[in-house]
Amino acid sequence: METTSRYSAGAESGNDIDELINDLPRGPLDRYRNQASFNWKTMKLHLDPPDVIAFMNRAYNFLERDPIFHIDDDDLTLEEQRIITYRRMRRLDSDNFVDESETLMDMRKATLFLTILGSYSWSLATRKALLEDFFILGILGLGSAHHYKYIMALKNNEIGGCFCLTEISHGTNSRAMRTEAVFDKNTQSFIIHTPDFEAAKCWSGNLGKTATHALVFAQLYTPDGVCHGLHIFFVPIRDPRTFMPYPGVTIVDMGHKLGLNGVDNGVVMFDHHSVPRENLLNRTGDVTPDGIYKTPFKDPNKRFGASLGNLSTGRVGIIGFGVINIKKALTIAVRYSAVRKQFGPENDEFPVIEYQMQQWRLFPYLAAVYALDNFAKAFNRLFANFRIEMLNSSDKDRLALYGQEVHGLSSAGKPLSGWLARDCIQECREACGGHGYLKCAGFGDLRNDNDANCTYEGDNNVLLQQTSNWLISVWGKRSDMSAKYPMGTIDYLDCGDKLMQQTWNGSPFSRSSTDQEIVSVCKEAMRWLVCWLCERTTCELTAQIDAGFDTFMAKNNSQIYLARTLSLAYVIQVVISWFEDSIKEADLSLQPVLYRMCALFGLSQLEKYIPQLFEGGLVKDGTFVSMVHHHIKRLCGEMLKDAVALVDAFAPPDFILRSALGNADGQVYQHLKTTMFSAPGAMSRPKHWKEMRYNVPSSKL
Amino acid sequence: METTSRYSAGAESGNDIDELINDLPRGPLDRYRNQASFNWKTMKLHLDPPDVIAFMNRAYNFLERDPIFHIDDDDLTLEEQRIITYRRMRRLDSDNFVDESETLMDMRKATLFLTILGSYSWSLATRKALLEDFFILGILGLGSAHHYKYIMALKNNEIGGCFCLTEISHGTNSRAMRTEAVFDKNTQSFIIHTPDFEAAKCWSGNLGKTATHALVFAQLYTPDGVCHGLHIFFVPIRDPRTFMPYPGVTIVDMGHKLGLNGVDNGVVMFDHHSVPRENLLNRTGDVTPDGIYKTPFKDPNKRFGASLGNLSTGRVGIIGFGVINIKKALTIAVRYSAVRKQFGPENDEFPVIEYQMQQWRLFPYLAAVYALDNFAKAFNRLFANFRIEMLNSSDKDRLALYGQEVHGLSSAGKPLSGWLARDCIQECREACGGHGYLKCAGFGDLRNDNDANCTYEGDNNVLLQQTSNWLISVWGKRSDMSAKYPMGTIDYLDCGDKLMQQTWNGSPFSRSSTDQEIVSVCKEAMRWLVCWLCERTTCELTAQIDAGFDTFMAKNNSQIYLARTLSLAYVIQVVISWFEDSIKEADLSLQPVLYRMCALFGLSQLEKYIPQLFEGGLVKDGTFVSMVHHHIKRLCGEMLKDAVALVDAFAPPDFILRSALGNADGQVYQHLKTTMFSAPGAMSRPKHWKEMRYNVPSSKL
Repeated sequence: METTSRYSAGAESGNDIDELINDLPRGPLDRYRNQASFNWKTMKLHLDPPDVIAFMNRAYNFLERDPIFHIDDDDLTLEEQRIITYRRMRRLDSDNFVDESETLMDMRKATLFLTILGSYSWSLATRKALLEDFFILGILGLGSAHHYKYIMALKNNEIGGCFCLTEISHGTNSRAMRTEAVFDKNTQSFIIHTPDFEAAKCWSGNLGKTATHALVFAQLYTPDGVCHGLHIFFVPIRDPRTFMPYPGVTIVDMGHKLGLNGVDNGVVMFDHHSVPRENLLNRTGDVTPDGIYKTPFKDPNKRFGASLGNLSTGRVGIIGFGVINIKKALTIAVRYSAVRKQFGPENDEFPVIEYQMQQWRLFPYLAAVYALDNFAKAFNRLFANFRIEMLNSSDKDRLALYGQEVHGLSSAGKPLSGWLARDCIQECREACGGHGYLKCAGFGDLRNDNDANCTYEGDNNVLLQQTSNWLISVWGKRSDMSAKYPMGTIDYLDCGDKLMQQTWNGSPFSRSSTDQEIVSVCKEAMRWLVCWLCERTTCELTAQIDAGFDTFMAKNNSQIYLARTLSLAYVIQVVISWFEDSIKEADLSLQPVLYRMCALFGLSQLEKYIPQLFEGGLVKDGTFVSMVHHHIKRLCGEMLKDAVALVDAFAPPDFILRSALGNADGQVYQHLKTTMFSAPGAMSRPKHWKEMRYNVPSSKL
Repeated sequence: METTSRYSAGAESGNDIDELINDLPRGPLDRYRNQASFNWKTMKLHLDPPDVIAFMNRAYNFLERDPIFHIDDDDLTLEEQRIITYRRMRRLDSDNFVDESETLMDMRKATLFLTILGSYSWSLATRKALLEDFFILGILGLGSAHHYKYIMALKNNEIGGCFCLTEISHGTNSRAMRTEAVFDKNTQSFIIHTPDFEAAKCWSGNLGKTATHALVFAQLYTPDGVCHGLHIFFVPIRDPRTFMPYPGVTIVDMGHKLGLNGVDNGVVMFDHHSVPRENLLNRTGDVTPDGIYKTPFKDPNKRFGASLGNLSTGRVGIIGFGVINIKKALTIAVRYSAVRKQFGPENDEFPVIEYQMQQWRLFPYLAAVYALDNFAKAFNRLFANFRIEMLNSSDKDRLALYGQEVHGLSSAGKPLSGWLARDCIQECREACGGHGYLKCAGFGDLRNDNDANCTYEGDNNVLLQQTSNWLISVWGKRSDMSAKYPMGTIDYLDCGDKLMQQTWNGSPFSRSSTDQEIVSVCKEAMRWLVCWLCERTTCELTAQIDAGFDTFMAKNNSQIYLARTLSLAYVIQVVISWFEDSIKEADLSLQPVLYRMCALFGLSQLEKYIPQLFEGGLVKDGTFVSMVHHHIKRLCGEMLKDAVALVDAFAPPDFILRSALGNADGQVYQHLKTTMFSAPGAMSRPKHWKEMRYNVPSSKL
């Protein structure tokens, strides 16, 4: 039997490509690796520059070296999952892994580190992010100088933080939160109170068993009984020496979830719990000792927006989380499909990746993850620029537009990424057949952990409304406005009227169209679709209002097939455009395969909107459908030779991938055998065998 | 706080409707229950006759009464999950729940019982089915009189069975199995041997830790070295007194899976393991003591088909399993959506079910499960008739056609049901927002257990090829053949040429079309699509062969957008037609809501094939798309008043549903609170709190 090997990350510094990127082990995947149209290391460098690869290697190697990251969590109780995650988190702290100067100099490295941790374990990444990063961001964003001591306390591990926004009966509608903070002049304190269980704070990570302090969103009341809206309070909840909740604080762990079970999400109820006046994070509003409310914002909506603005970082991050999950799922499924043989003409069996069906199931996602990876990185850069401008720029008008565009793009990008990951993981799991159902294949944790992305930081369907609201508002004033948005994602709206007049009488492409031409058609079609949906949604809103609905219901009645589709079309157009832009900068040897993927991503997205293209009259001729199908099949076929190398270029080391089916050496069956034979108790009698004994008669069967 | 109540099943016998069906508890769901257009008990009786309801009640009550079925399995190890499932299985045996005469008199009751068990726990249902039913079916189907003693031994719990077909490197392609059974004249025995790990038998349920005997599929070799193909052998594998594998038998448990962890799936390898000649199940082929192979089949393909034919029962069953999973998911999501409030005009919040978006996410599945439930039951009846005819009829030609049609319909019905369940569970989970991610919401087990349906008993995508192969073969001789198939599912093919000439110049329906008219249009469109795809796929096959591909590759290259779509379109057409037929038999008071659902199911399926309708030229005008969207929105809106009553009519008792969000009393928040507060350890310090203590400085923060 052939021997197996473990593929690990390369050097942790330097620029030597062959030291940064280890050669892949030889084995059954060579058949496809040798066919690749490009050098996979060149592609890897296209995806990440050497310093990022070195940084990732450092993190991967750290995890692989330390035995605590090797403990198998198959059979752990909830309590055990939490403690192992906690220990891993502390192990990272003890190493001071990302030093502060590094993080502050390049915010993207913090995100990168989180993503690397997430590729190992989303429970670990989540706990670490929530216990420290989110908490610190909250204090930095909304607190004042006298709150900064808490940041030091966090860094010294004197306290642990959690973030309490969601309530049992209010999540998405955050303005309707009902936790109260009433200022009491006599004691100079806020009395935090939970009126009933439905107003209990919930879903807060680290709250269940770990955190000592919470940043609590509550409605601020002055002694005159006036409510000034949601504010954040720094609230001690649990004694750091005894881990017992303070009097007036009831904490309940939320128990098992579908995934992320290393995170102790909790519920907290306050019974007239008192905190000093100074514990209000008072950047956006404060109460004087006399009980007078003061705020620099005249418009309470803007104050509310500013306090929530800090949370939008999450959405931009989640786009990248989806990318990681897709990469892992595809690495497993593509490598397995290149080794797994089934059927064939006569007695010669084919690797299943040779079948058009398998290609069609997997390769559009392979194209999508290259598109989405580029999108996530480009967006991260622009978002970082936005935050720098926020600190430095005095052009408030530009900042306002920038903020709207970031909000609009992240609110559609997060659903796109979360759903693509959801669908890709599932398709990969099924594409691996029965063995994909084994836990050791690796799809279970991916699916269960990724699932949270679809509803947290805003339910996907509700988030999409944020994007369409913005687009519709711009549409009404497109000639003045659309070109002014700094990221340029809707500059084409100003020629919307011209775009909408277009009609393709035949098919806009033929069987011999190049991939560049196909990309252009896809971009054009998506732009047409965005404009047409802006117009249609606007008309529907008017029709609804004319029919007597109020604005609220009119909007709700204009979502399906209209506003919701609009938001998705908008972000897809951006993903295609930015992907194409990046290809032009890529090494020449990579451009053909990148263009193939850009075309395949474009077509496989466009395909979903074909009915609308006919409905709106852009397309008149049914041969357009045949051409779309033809080119999707052609592109899937052409990707066959490159698919394995394309996953090699983004696959994490074997230890991080943790899949018996997806190792870099392609020795699927050997790894499967080793995994099963070495599992504790796999070959022993059941513990309760005596109880299970049969009624054996005297004569042996 | 309002009190909660548990809704249980009603009387276990009799015909008194109010005793068979308990009234629902009053509560927040009354708002919608009072609006329903029909009596929910009448609907319940439409779905199941009184004797079936009584039988279901008996099973539900049995489960609810016995404490062993109340044990919470949140924190159990794999070993513990297996033993609890084992004990539950034995508890069912001890009660002799389904007495034999009942099962034999009405085969459907056995399926029904399995489905009820599955609605409680798919691990339990699977183990029970595999340990006894499948084993017995195998022996009855392929064995001879001298094997029947094993059936008695099973019933007396002297042995436990498992079924070994799949091998590590061959699942779908069962002909390529490599386990050998070589006849040895000297010892008058078969030597069962596994050449290597890739030929190890795997995925066999109960093999890992429980079974004493296996039905093993192996290639039969006579002493002359000739291979006679796959046969089934009755093989002792584990000593029933000690639970140790016999010498020459290596058994490995397959460990954790994505779901069904109460089932001990195993791997077995045989090292020249000897079994007596009589242990060959010899109905389709036997070896004489002299080593001569004898078979009543001249064509080895037919012999192979006959031995696999017994497995097709599984697919018909799985269609119904998907229905149960959809019912459970929808019960949770619809009830929760009717109670959960979020947003609203001014300060008045709306239940989220009032939003068009939520309706559009859930109600098409609600329509689908009524359609699919009817399909599963009708198909089960026809399949039972087929099996009776198999035993009694001498019309071999009719039987052959019946068998092909059953095979074609089940091979497309199982994927349709499995995928609809997969997508519905996921949509329901997301539609419940963050709380849907709690394990106590109930979606995790549903998703994880249903997932197996997508790949076992044949991978869905491969199964669909069985259907299309049959349809394409009939298409070539449609004028002679299509009307002869006993279930009548393709009788329209003979007017295929006329159907395909159709063109709808405008939209075939208007804004004022009735639901009956819409159903007719959907049926017509799906029939057109089946014929058009038969023709297109046939042309593509010819083109591929003309281009030099062999038959094998030509077929593989004609799957996507063609053969695969064809199979799905075929089964959807049957589901719509049978649903419509059943509505005509229904109580008049139910017909309007049933027609609404039939129309909504039809449109929401048809919607997916709009591109093809344009491509093939049935539809020319884009207003068709607008009409489809208009009626889907209209129907979703019209279902609002009935949605809660529609789930009430099929919801299992609360104990079976096991969801904090989905109880019949609608007291979502009270149940959530009780569940979380009463979970063991939810309010206590973490066990390792001392290890987790913070570096508290002398001055308290």
